[in-house]
Amino acid sequence: MSIITLTTDYGLKDHFVGALKGKILSEYSEAQIIDISHYIDPFNTVEASYIISAAYSSFPKGTVHLIGVDMESNKENKHVVMQWNDHYFIAADNGILTMLSQKIVPQKIVAINIHDRLPSGSVDLDVFVKVACHLAKGGLMNIIGKEISSIKEVSSYQPIVSPDGNSLKGNVIYIDHFGNIVTNITKDHFINVAKGRPYEIELKSKNIKTILPNYSAIATSEKYPIKSYEGEKLAVFNESGFLEIAVFRSNPSTVGSASSLLGLNYQSIITILFGT
Amino acid sequence: MSIITLTTDYGLKDHFVGALKGKILSEYSEAQIIDISHYIDPFNTVEASYIISAAYSSFPKGTVHLIGVDMESNKENKHVVMQWNDHYFIAADNGILTMLSQKIVPQKIVAINIHDRLPSGSVDLDVFVKVACHLAKGGLMNIIGKEISSIKEVSSYQPIVSPDGNSLKGNVIYIDHFGNIVTNITKDHFINVAKGRPYEIELKSKNIKTILPNYSAIATSEKYPIKSYEGEKLAVFNESGFLEIAVFRSNPSTVGSASSLLGLNYQSIITILFGT
Amino acid sequence: MSIITLTTDYGLKDHFVGALKGKILSEYSEAQIIDISHYIDPFNTVEASYIISAAYSSFPKGTVHLIGVDMESNKENKHVVMQWNDHYFIAADNGILTMLSQKIVPQKIVAINIHDRLPSGSVDLDVFVKVACHLAKGGLMNIIGKEISSIKEVSSYQPIVSPDGNSLKGNVIYIDHFGNIVTNITKDHFINVAKGRPYEIELKSKNIKTILPNYSAIATSEKYPIKSYEGEKLAVFNESGFLEIAVFRSNPSTVGSASSLLGLNYQSIITILFGT
Repeated sequence: MSIITLTTDYGLKDHFVGALKGKILSEYSEAQIIDISHYIDPFNTVEASYIISAAYSSFPKGTVHLIGVDMESNKENKHVVMQWNDHYFIAADNGILTMLSQKIVPQKIVAINIHDRLPSGSVDLDVFVKVACHLAKGGLMNIIGKEISSIKEVSSYQPIVSPDGNSLKGNVIYIDHFGNIVTNITKDHFINVAKGRPYEIELKSKNIKTILPNYSAIATSEKYPIKSYEGEKLAVFNESGFLEIAVFRSNPSTVGSASSLLGLNYQSIITILFGT
Repeated sequence: MSIITLTTDYGLKDHFVGALKGKILSEYSEAQIIDISHYIDPFNTVEASYIISAAYSSFPKGTVHLIGVDMESNKENKHVVMQWNDHYFIAADNGILTMLSQKIVPQKIVAINIHDRLPSGSVDLDVFVKVACHLAKGGLMNIIGKEISSIKEVSSYQPIVSPDGNSLKGNVIYIDHFGNIVTNITKDHFINVAKGRPYEIELKSKNIKTILPNYSAIATSEKYPIKSYEGEKLAVFNESGFLEIAVFRSNPSTVGSASSLLGLNYQSIITILFGT
Repeated sequence: MSIITLTTDYGLKDHFVGALKGKILSEYSEAQIIDISHYIDPFNTVEASYIISAAYSSFPKGTVHLIGVDMESNKENKHVVMQWNDHYFIAADNGILTMLSQKIVPQKIVAINIHDRLPSGSVDLDVFVKVACHLAKGGLMNIIGKEISSIKEVSSYQPIVSPDGNSLKGNVIYIDHFGNIVTNITKDHFINVAKGRPYEIELKSKNIKTILPNYSAIATSEKYPIKSYEGEKLAVFNESGFLEIAVFRSNPSTVGSASSLLGLNYQSIITILFGT
């Protein structure tokens, strides 16, 4: 028996998430269902992609991840299951799985083909429920789909290295609950380009010259209390390996956040300059 | 063992929902608890009524639905359990179950009478917890209440057919997470009045002349990408059978929603005109 | 097997709560996890303190409460487990457990010392997960920490009795989903100071002279319908024993709330005057 996780843009006010769980439990009464997020920005596949890639590794191998974002089947987007790093991902083939598949080659991909086998009146979500329960019970991928060789790749928002190798430009791909800014620049990519050189992250206010190992590392001096560092901006590679610009102990509704204080929004450009 | 679902206006910031689950698990440690919504507009029994009627059918028969909206017992509203379509609904008798009971006759209704059997200091929610656990364990309704013949009917917000049969006026009963507008006009009611005639849904901007089978059906041409349809308004009968006015791939915080774009709010009137 | 509850300031948009649950289930697949709140105001230890003290008693003895608010380990705040009233609380020693420890003496406190035993790359949250699962499985406290005699006490926001004993000044420590105001004045403290004298709760508008046993008690007359009392302000001791100023059937987004109508915010002062 595997866990089924849910990542959607349904919100929590409507009955959609509850009904989805009801359908899963009707199909498979022992299912263990865990919410990852239901507040993905509507139809934002980049956000969904980041959230699922940041969350999956906290779950045991074999976990089934159902992604209900922009998932209506249409002439452009088919339904797929990707087995990747020993996890299963069910989604529309709309680029949402790119962030994973570009990192590690998928083990197997199938185009779901059970649509005709469901009762009439079934909707796209019923297909996902059926597939998720089948996989969570240990069922084989070949029974619910036809193997395909690749999924759609979305290459927008890849960081760009300047021709002289002296700068790395990325984008803001996510702003979290604390107003911290997540970029698409990974630690590996940074190390590769930096080659040990000094660097500066360009910001409207003072540039940042050091990426910290964690938030608390900002309190460098034993002389001052932790509280005195509140509101200072900092950079870290977060647990998912992405460069993050944060404000120490930020609270968007009181002292402000990295996003509001630095004027950075979803898709804003972040530039790192390398010295010699 | 049955599922217990929760529908309340408690919100998720406070400890109320967590405490409610703690009380249920203290009483019945194997209970399987599923949230339907905790963001019902405070004390809004019409919203609660719509949400529970839209959600129940996704759950297996025998499910116990606890409705914690306007549920303080008082001189006007008694606590009741309604067995209906093989599901159980626990609520205050404030009209919240009307949307269900007007569609199918309830199998059995009891007025809960265990209040005196609980420890002193018990509150209304403790009564609901006790009843929900009793029913989820398979207990009989007669043990926790006295059979009554009917519940309070709330007839407001029923769609109205004009005397000449050429128009049908309904109301907005719910606005969902995507800003889509749900009316109280059901597919059955519409078909009955339409009698196959052409129709127009009157809107501030251009009227809608076709109710689609689903959202994606808006992409009628093979020539244009799905993306080109974003932001177009459309009408569908939603999965719960109610007429919904939507915007294709709407995002209330960016491109706007049916609610904001068409100036429609909770209780606004929607009129369908029938031609000859 | 015990329940593990979660109280954090992570919000529900990000993947953090889902990932936390994934880590718990990876460590202990049968864990029963219940959310208390993930919308604690960021880094607000007073709010967290109130919520956990209001919620814990609804759970069975032996429950493990994981508190993820301001929990990064640093030179000032160590990680601790407090056994108290037969419940377990895992938190940073930042004053968050004061509201409990000032009411009843803790049974046992340990400073967590397993940090070096975890795999490299482990973060603070991994420590809490390990400890929570250990305790939920019935493990001993001594195995994961070293006994200490006390935790940090935070005495701010204690109500103050005037020298002549004729007034009691408290603070707003929480504003709930309905906009009701919770103060730090407990029923016990009030009774002790009041000594049976008449009293008035000072408010910008008309003072309140009676603290009701529950919300519905405001409907004193049989002549008027419940609805006619909507919007009236009232005072009660809430289920957690704290003085609360509420508006009957309030809805912050429509008729307003105690907070908005009375101009009271987090930390505002509430004064009770005693007569003779």
